[in-house]
Amino acid sequence: MNGLGGVLRRGAVFLGSKEEYEEAQLVILGAPLDWTISWRPGARLGPAHIRASSEVLEEYSPALDCDLSSVPFYDAGDLELPFGDTAASLALIRESVQRIIMDGKVPLLLGGEHLVTYPAVEAVRQYHPDLAVLHFDAHADLRQEYMGVTLSHATVMRRVLELGRLELYQFGIRSGSEAEFIFAPTHTHFYPFEFREALEKVVPTLAGRPVYITIDIDVVDPAFAPGTGTPEPGGCTAQEILASVYALRDLLVVGFDLVEVAPLYDPSGRTGVLAAKIVREAILAWGSRSQETAEGG
Amino acid sequence: MNGLGGVLRRGAVFLGSKEEYEEAQLVILGAPLDWTISWRPGARLGPAHIRASSEVLEEYSPALDCDLSSVPFYDAGDLELPFGDTAASLALIRESVQRIIMDGKVPLLLGGEHLVTYPAVEAVRQYHPDLAVLHFDAHADLRQEYMGVTLSHATVMRRVLELGRLELYQFGIRSGSEAEFIFAPTHTHFYPFEFREALEKVVPTLAGRPVYITIDIDVVDPAFAPGTGTPEPGGCTAQEILASVYALRDLLVVGFDLVEVAPLYDPSGRTGVLAAKIVREAILAWGSRSQETAEGG
Amino acid sequence: MNGLGGVLRRGAVFLGSKEEYEEAQLVILGAPLDWTISWRPGARLGPAHIRASSEVLEEYSPALDCDLSSVPFYDAGDLELPFGDTAASLALIRESVQRIIMDGKVPLLLGGEHLVTYPAVEAVRQYHPDLAVLHFDAHADLRQEYMGVTLSHATVMRRVLELGRLELYQFGIRSGSEAEFIFAPTHTHFYPFEFREALEKVVPTLAGRPVYITIDIDVVDPAFAPGTGTPEPGGCTAQEILASVYALRDLLVVGFDLVEVAPLYDPSGRTGVLAAKIVREAILAWGSRSQETAEGG
Amino acid sequence: MNGLGGVLRRGAVFLGSKEEYEEAQLVILGAPLDWTISWRPGARLGPAHIRASSEVLEEYSPALDCDLSSVPFYDAGDLELPFGDTAASLALIRESVQRIIMDGKVPLLLGGEHLVTYPAVEAVRQYHPDLAVLHFDAHADLRQEYMGVTLSHATVMRRVLELGRLELYQFGIRSGSEAEFIFAPTHTHFYPFEFREALEKVVPTLAGRPVYITIDIDVVDPAFAPGTGTPEPGGCTAQEILASVYALRDLLVVGFDLVEVAPLYDPSGRTGVLAAKIVREAILAWGSRSQETAEGG
Amino acid sequence: MNGLGGVLRRGAVFLGSKEEYEEAQLVILGAPLDWTISWRPGARLGPAHIRASSEVLEEYSPALDCDLSSVPFYDAGDLELPFGDTAASLALIRESVQRIIMDGKVPLLLGGEHLVTYPAVEAVRQYHPDLAVLHFDAHADLRQEYMGVTLSHATVMRRVLELGRLELYQFGIRSGSEAEFIFAPTHTHFYPFEFREALEKVVPTLAGRPVYITIDIDVVDPAFAPGTGTPEPGGCTAQEILASVYALRDLLVVGFDLVEVAPLYDPSGRTGVLAAKIVREAILAWGSRSQETAEGG
Amino acid sequence: MNGLGGVLRRGAVFLGSKEEYEEAQLVILGAPLDWTISWRPGARLGPAHIRASSEVLEEYSPALDCDLSSVPFYDAGDLELPFGDTAASLALIRESVQRIIMDGKVPLLLGGEHLVTYPAVEAVRQYHPDLAVLHFDAHADLRQEYMGVTLSHATVMRRVLELGRLELYQFGIRSGSEAEFIFAPTHTHFYPFEFREALEKVVPTLAGRPVYITIDIDVVDPAFAPGTGTPEPGGCTAQEILASVYALRDLLVVGFDLVEVAPLYDPSGRTGVLAAKIVREAILAWGSRSQETAEGG
Repeated sequence: MNGLGGVLRRGAVFLGSKEEYEEAQLVILGAPLDWTISWRPGARLGPAHIRASSEVLEEYSPALDCDLSSVPFYDAGDLELPFGDTAASLALIRESVQRIIMDGKVPLLLGGEHLVTYPAVEAVRQYHPDLAVLHFDAHADLRQEYMGVTLSHATVMRRVLELGRLELYQFGIRSGSEAEFIFAPTHTHFYPFEFREALEKVVPTLAGRPVYITIDIDVVDPAFAPGTGTPEPGGCTAQEILASVYALRDLLVVGFDLVEVAPLYDPSGRTGVLAAKIVREAILAWGSRSQETAEGG
Repeated sequence: MNGLGGVLRRGAVFLGSKEEYEEAQLVILGAPLDWTISWRPGARLGPAHIRASSEVLEEYSPALDCDLSSVPFYDAGDLELPFGDTAASLALIRESVQRIIMDGKVPLLLGGEHLVTYPAVEAVRQYHPDLAVLHFDAHADLRQEYMGVTLSHATVMRRVLELGRLELYQFGIRSGSEAEFIFAPTHTHFYPFEFREALEKVVPTLAGRPVYITIDIDVVDPAFAPGTGTPEPGGCTAQEILASVYALRDLLVVGFDLVEVAPLYDPSGRTGVLAAKIVREAILAWGSRSQETAEGG
Repeated sequence: MNGLGGVLRRGAVFLGSKEEYEEAQLVILGAPLDWTISWRPGARLGPAHIRASSEVLEEYSPALDCDLSSVPFYDAGDLELPFGDTAASLALIRESVQRIIMDGKVPLLLGGEHLVTYPAVEAVRQYHPDLAVLHFDAHADLRQEYMGVTLSHATVMRRVLELGRLELYQFGIRSGSEAEFIFAPTHTHFYPFEFREALEKVVPTLAGRPVYITIDIDVVDPAFAPGTGTPEPGGCTAQEILASVYALRDLLVVGFDLVEVAPLYDPSGRTGVLAAKIVREAILAWGSRSQETAEGG
Repeated sequence: MNGLGGVLRRGAVFLGSKEEYEEAQLVILGAPLDWTISWRPGARLGPAHIRASSEVLEEYSPALDCDLSSVPFYDAGDLELPFGDTAASLALIRESVQRIIMDGKVPLLLGGEHLVTYPAVEAVRQYHPDLAVLHFDAHADLRQEYMGVTLSHATVMRRVLELGRLELYQFGIRSGSEAEFIFAPTHTHFYPFEFREALEKVVPTLAGRPVYITIDIDVVDPAFAPGTGTPEPGGCTAQEILASVYALRDLLVVGFDLVEVAPLYDPSGRTGVLAAKIVREAILAWGSRSQETAEGG
Repeated sequence: MNGLGGVLRRGAVFLGSKEEYEEAQLVILGAPLDWTISWRPGARLGPAHIRASSEVLEEYSPALDCDLSSVPFYDAGDLELPFGDTAASLALIRESVQRIIMDGKVPLLLGGEHLVTYPAVEAVRQYHPDLAVLHFDAHADLRQEYMGVTLSHATVMRRVLELGRLELYQFGIRSGSEAEFIFAPTHTHFYPFEFREALEKVVPTLAGRPVYITIDIDVVDPAFAPGTGTPEPGGCTAQEILASVYALRDLLVVGFDLVEVAPLYDPSGRTGVLAAKIVREAILAWGSRSQETAEGG
Repeated sequence: MNGLGGVLRRGAVFLGSKEEYEEAQLVILGAPLDWTISWRPGARLGPAHIRASSEVLEEYSPALDCDLSSVPFYDAGDLELPFGDTAASLALIRESVQRIIMDGKVPLLLGGEHLVTYPAVEAVRQYHPDLAVLHFDAHADLRQEYMGVTLSHATVMRRVLELGRLELYQFGIRSGSEAEFIFAPTHTHFYPFEFREALEKVVPTLAGRPVYITIDIDVVDPAFAPGTGTPEPGGCTAQEILASVYALRDLLVVGFDLVEVAPLYDPSGRTGVLAAKIVREAILAWGSRSQETAEGG
């Protein structure tokens, strides 16, 4: 605080964030990693951009008819990752997510590239052994390795699978190698291309089970989300990804992330606003449930 | 004119504009106001951009099968507003719209921010007491005040309502405060989110009654209209907003505006082209009716 | 080759191109012409951009379940056109396409502006007299002349028609002069606006007949393909243009082109990626058929 | 603070800002006003952009051989100004600056447009009656009124002069009306165009006297600072404006501001980095002196 | 005029243009040709951009201490050139310039690409046989042909030379083929690289003789004028090109042009503002002399 | 080659590159590494951009009066680096540079980030034990570690120094930590800020000795080279960096690199053109000497 009274806005945090970590049921954490990206870098600028974009939104969601004040959350800012050191960066993310969970809070990661999902799921899985991971993406990310690298945004879901004791559900995948498209149907719950109906079918089967949700913004068509490193034409609309958030409303979400927002490629800023809106709706749709659980438990 | 013959194109006016004000049944007027905007300014550059964008269009509309030559209109250019002086600017807009109506012509305002609708409706309402205002927007714009300011692009429809003796129809609203979403259903004809069916239902009830139509370009999804100050994902498509223009074809339109085009945020220029196409179709769909009326009257 | 071993990537050719012309069944040829463009130039930068954009794609198409290795093709690079000399440029394109056909290969032209279709069809028609030309575009391109110029991207389909002994099918047209919309229905198979159903109806009638396909990227809505010179709101989606490629899968395609990609207007690069994806899917969907034919013949 | 330890960076404040207002000798305050701007708006985005740009800088200045740790300052964030209400906004700025001075600290304003200098000088002048105002700008800003508006970024220095009991020094002016260029030499210490030598001459005459310094970023040539609303070719270089900061090192600076940074017009971000570097050097060059004074006093 | 009174600004003409051709001593004419450009097109958008950019300038020049009201000029708008037809376009330009001269006025051409200088000089030379052409450019433009094309922006000065009965002075050239650099010193007054001193030496020798001046904006370093098709690092500053305009003040300028402004490559807009400032200063520095002459003659 | 004759241009290599590695005296190698970058990534796009930008240049240098045909060089394309794996990437670069040297050729690396200099110098040093390294940069790059990482673009020159048996000359440094500015004068030949005179003094002392030259494009002021990740205002001009290349003309250059070009931040493309011009001049100024040596040796 300062001596200047109440008319100031200091620093940039996500719309509606509480002032104190302790008040929060849910914690936003930025993970500005982007060095294993294969085409165009820039996802490291995602978290700060999503926060700044949240300013244009209201705290109230007409679709969910509730307000961010109803789910106390805290935006913890960005991790200071050691640039170019993948192993150390992943360790830092894993430890931070662990701490959030140990504090009885739900982690919400803002990427950065998709590889950040790996340490996050690693941490969540320790506390929720029967975990289901729901993965929305244009790309399968199931490669064994990519250009000799095993920890990469192109291999992350393969690494997640290898953690074991979890099930992976993939939605919207429309790009991959032939090997990935052979591997996926026998190793994951695989719903490529249009996924709305699949989602309706899957949701009831997950009732009561802990789920981790990871959304790669490129599952959305680049018309609606051009600010991303590896755009793949033919994705869903903004309305459809928001509808997916609502469709998952009754699940027990124990962690989630939104990754691959790269603002350099979108001078209009609409990718950041869409990302911020997904975050707001996810907090409202999934966070209140986690709150009940916490209160109930 | 000049001594150089017929191969010259001088100045920039909307495609198909007549050379003389007197010939026109309908008058385009730019109102480059953008100082009460809450997030990103730039709507003041809208009118000039829409004019320049109209160059890429044909004068003929295949959808309506008619041509701009069939509705004589005049592009009067931009008002020279006193920058930063809201009250004086609104007065200037109101007086200019009044003059257009008194000259027996239909005003077509190009914003500028949404606040320009207020003086325009104020002027129109004097001559058409039983007015219906049709409002297409992502945002309700129904706040009592915004950051202590009562005349703002976030409060404009509340101010319009307060003029009294008119009815407000709102279409496509998908953002607002909780207070606005409580206020709206009891004070306006409120059709949030998808509005196509609502429009079909409403149009017949408005037959023969004077209507003023205001389109905030952000009712369209930012994928189709990224060039705007406060983008809100989840809107309608370009085809859907054009279809709305056609759906209103039989109404007695006594004034309209298109606002919030901010070209800085759209390097592709497609927002300006969409705006120009909406203007062309609106002139053809609504202007010819006004012409009949004028001739009939 | 060089002395540096296998880890190098030299030059920029379309993803999956063979090293040698002789190996190929299909030849990509860039035609960077853009001087008859009426509004915004820049299509000359299209071919290089589409090649660079192909890097983000996989060689495997999940929709078609096959891989670029299955259709041997060669990217021959760009023609060095004499800037500003339309006649000489068209002659150069015509001769190059002729040579490709005489070598028993299928030409795939990357524009450049739409006028490049004219010499390509001229060459193809010599070897396939009963040709059907399928034209996907926002604009009719059927003008007799444009600003005194008869060879222009606004007149190209009229010129193609005048070659005689071919039939023209037009899909998705949503802009043109009144004269063009009067001319089209009596001179071409004319399917303006939405064309999916028309395509389903037309395809069976073309079985076994040689077809040349020309896709102007602006048939797609500028939300999905903003990088083009004359954007026209209200077009199809990325999914719909890809579905059109699949719908034409069983035809005997003897030549095709993709034109009017102008990367300057799309900082996100998604137009280039969409164009590259259309090219990949077209090679896989149409090229393998041409291969059979060649092998069968 | 939060439970996540020391690896986090939360919010965005200027490089090296203290955590607490009380620790500071100097206070940075953002004033995101931009509604009286005559050409291109966007200066409201300046303060946040300058803060974010400061991240690329070191805290150490090789030119001054000292470090931001040597001058304790606090970045108080941005004032929440009522959009479009000039009078209320100026009052808010004036009161905040007053408070900073009353707390014994030096105010450093980040614009916003140049009009913010008016309330700042108004506040400073109350405590330092014998004030000299040093004004670096491309434009004279001495108009009596502009388009009927008296409080505008084009009239601000005339208003400042009218406060009385202060002297105005103008450097680098290269644009204005004929009336301004007649008025200036008789009412201000007027050093248009190249100002390096003038500065050397003037500085000794100001020794010991309280000075307020206002730098309009457009005094710098748009090659070095393109991100501004009203660029005027022919200005000084980045090195020259930094040299001016050093030249003023021995003065008793009681307040300063940097205005008219509009990041929308500079995709390279170098304007923001230059602005941040000017701020860093100004804090080091001028702030340490103010510290001495405070300590001495 | 229209019925709306005096607060309107209609169309876009260069700052200070008279309403009527007849009043003018000097005529601005846009020549939006850009089809023989070798690298990046877009100069056709130059004239409209320069006009729009002139809005940010004052009508008064402090450097020349005079005002645009002192030299009556008329902005005639843009020629409607037949896209892609070089010969017809050049003829149209030549005829228009001829007409301007025959009307006793001085032509000021806004390119467009540099080839537009050819028909302009052709026209001027008819009336001023002893013409000196002063050419400011980064490129020699002296090729015999370029990629088989003889009329091109890379050959234009060779074509001008071939007109005969004129002398060519070249300033600032820093790029060309070896052949051009061998040709130039024996065929033109050749002052490559730094040209300030050369200019001082040359100017007195041209006293009283009719001169045509052509400025390719790329003579200026791309730091100061990035909006051009073929940027060549190492040019002069904005101040230096303006100083050149002043240095030529006493010459008898019978025609001039400013070419190769391509706004697409400069999101900051400063190239357009520099171009507009060059035009303003040129009108004031050269136009008043032409006025005297006209009055004297 | 292909069957289409001589009018084709295939792939993108640096202007004037020979077709075969064996013909070359000098080898260009792209090293698209950018994962240890601290602020804005994108230098991986540098090599391809510099090649594409070389197209706008002539092969002839007027300043050096010679032509690229006089120094046979080969552009080997880009190394395929494993994204995010720093150690493996550096090994690959080192091995490739070793091979080039073993083949009796001079390596010319195009970064990528500055860290690529480390393996290059490591390789060169093996064959030239008495090496002098000349380093042009805005930043000292002498940190012991940066955010826990020892191999980073902020530590690269410290690592180079640690290789031992070489001397480091630093020019133009204007940013660093206090520790770096204490370390530098006692460990390197340190010429911060303006360096022209220093260069003149140093060059004669290096006669006959093998030198490796590394140019970080950010030594140039961001006005002239905005396309870079960590812009630092106050650098040299384009003319000055070119003059530096000429000043080093008589040295025995055994390797060089140009790093940190990040085209995303420069829509004008002038950074790429400047980089390409530096490369052309360096090939001509330094490569011909290496040729003599090779021939002599």
